[in-house]
Amino acid sequence: MQPITEENITGLAAQRWASAHDPRLAEIMAALVRHLHEFAREVRLTETEWMAAIQWLNRAGQTSDDKREEFILASDVLGLSMLVVQMNHRLDPAATPATVLGPFHIEGSPQLGFGADMSEGLPGTPLYIHGTVRDLGGKPVGGAVLDVWQADAEGVYEAQLDVDEARLRAKYTIREDGSYCIRTITPRGYSIPMDGPVGDLIGRTAISHSRPAHVHFLIDVPGYEPLVTHLFQEGADYLDSDVVFGTKRELIVAFEPREPGPTPDGGTSDRAWAETRYDFVLQPRP
Amino acid sequence: MQPITEENITGLAAQRWASAHDPRLAEIMAALVRHLHEFAREVRLTETEWMAAIQWLNRAGQTSDDKREEFILASDVLGLSMLVVQMNHRLDPAATPATVLGPFHIEGSPQLGFGADMSEGLPGTPLYIHGTVRDLGGKPVGGAVLDVWQADAEGVYEAQLDVDEARLRAKYTIREDGSYCIRTITPRGYSIPMDGPVGDLIGRTAISHSRPAHVHFLIDVPGYEPLVTHLFQEGADYLDSDVVFGTKRELIVAFEPREPGPTPDGGTSDRAWAETRYDFVLQPRP
Ligand SMILES: [Fe+2]
Ligand SMILES: [Fe+2]
Repeated sequence: MQPITEENITGLAAQRWASAHDPRLAEIMAALVRHLHEFAREVRLTETEWMAAIQWLNRAGQTSDDKREEFILASDVLGLSMLVVQMNHRLDPAATPATVLGPFHIEGSPQLGFGADMSEGLPGTPLYIHGTVRDLGGKPVGGAVLDVWQADAEGVYEAQLDVDEARLRAKYTIREDGSYCIRTITPRGYSIPMDGPVGDLIGRTAISHSRPAHVHFLIDVPGYEPLVTHLFQEGADYLDSDVVFGTKRELIVAFEPREPGPTPDGGTSDRAWAETRYDFVLQPRP
Repeated sequence: MQPITEENITGLAAQRWASAHDPRLAEIMAALVRHLHEFAREVRLTETEWMAAIQWLNRAGQTSDDKREEFILASDVLGLSMLVVQMNHRLDPAATPATVLGPFHIEGSPQLGFGADMSEGLPGTPLYIHGTVRDLGGKPVGGAVLDVWQADAEGVYEAQLDVDEARLRAKYTIREDGSYCIRTITPRGYSIPMDGPVGDLIGRTAISHSRPAHVHFLIDVPGYEPLVTHLFQEGADYLDSDVVFGTKRELIVAFEPREPGPTPDGGTSDRAWAETRYDFVLQPRP
């Protein structure tokens, strides 16, 4: 029997977990043991702090449900989500950069055509986002789908509400020439949910708990690197302090104010509206 | 606005969390960010793996309740709990070593006198555990309390059952001369709960999911280092593969078989019984 000591326990535990049948699981678990132990050793974690961490994890799990993802939020505010995104999407600088998925994406949004309104019935300034989806060589990515979701004019997502119908989310078909046109309302920046264990931690720091106004996009087309990204409103608050580290200079776009008149979908607006032009660039898969 | 890159995100996130108002929280959170990111970088965590981890954490939180502590179990099987115990109890080699608390301790056990039976009505081989509680100088620690809990002859704890009365747990008063005497039944080794996310992970490795037979003790006396420990049965299965890394050579004791006759509490047994002598040694606080 090998006596277990403060010195040898990390090696023993890593070795034990390296017995996972799947080599990738073995690698991940052994590395997890080493880094977790290194963390505890570096700060010389006390038993009281360890117990506080256990209770925090319990609370995070119990705060989560189909409308609330507290562990994703934790990963986001620790910068882990954005690190994982960046490691897994080392794209050509000419391609549209990726950013975090966030906890508010909902599967199965309704399919809408060019210029259709995904904000129907909701108050706010009309916003047209339009442009093209092309690959690095400039070839249109026609027939693909642009999955879009965003917060409303109060900064609230459908996933945070009890509603029956899709609200501020849609799948827009990209036309054969690569063009797309989204009609929506200008989103508002928002605070991450502060009433759970992540909020409790943030509240004990000087960290700003807000995100700059943005719209989410997911473009997953066979043959191309799947792209999860946002477009951020130029001039919005919190652009340089996004609590989830999601902003990128290349993703900041103007919401240009427009007078009543013709709109990019070929119609006209009798109200003032805003226009954003953005051309997405996808990277072909190797 | 500072652009966020794969290279600078760890430093930025650590710096942000170092703004915690409490310096100890700042130290812990900044170190957590660094080690978490180092882990993700070392294994180059994929987005699928990241999502599997999020779902595992959710499930662990939702498996936990007042009878089940899945995050403590996770910490135990990763060797983290035992590391934390060892870092926080660097005791004199002559003192009784500490080991993990485990997830089955229940507060407020009934107070029992010298030799009283904490296994009343339960099937099993009677076991008397007796000896003294002294300090490093040999001075009896009289009047203090020995909080004891254990599994039954099937390896099951009260915390895993729906019962109304205390079951195989008690607080024994230590007599003025330092002597104590516990009457119980011999515990059985047991598997950790395998029906949750920790069990799922263990099941994908060659790790033994069992613990050797043991009795738990907690002695918390003013002026002394609080002691949380076990006594393990000599010759028990799994002594060299304890899934929570809790065994220590100094904590292995014989359960000596005894014929019917006089017992250490001054009574007699008409059945065969087992005897364990152990002298606990506490370390005074500096
Ligand atoms: Fe968002
Ligand atoms: Fe136990």
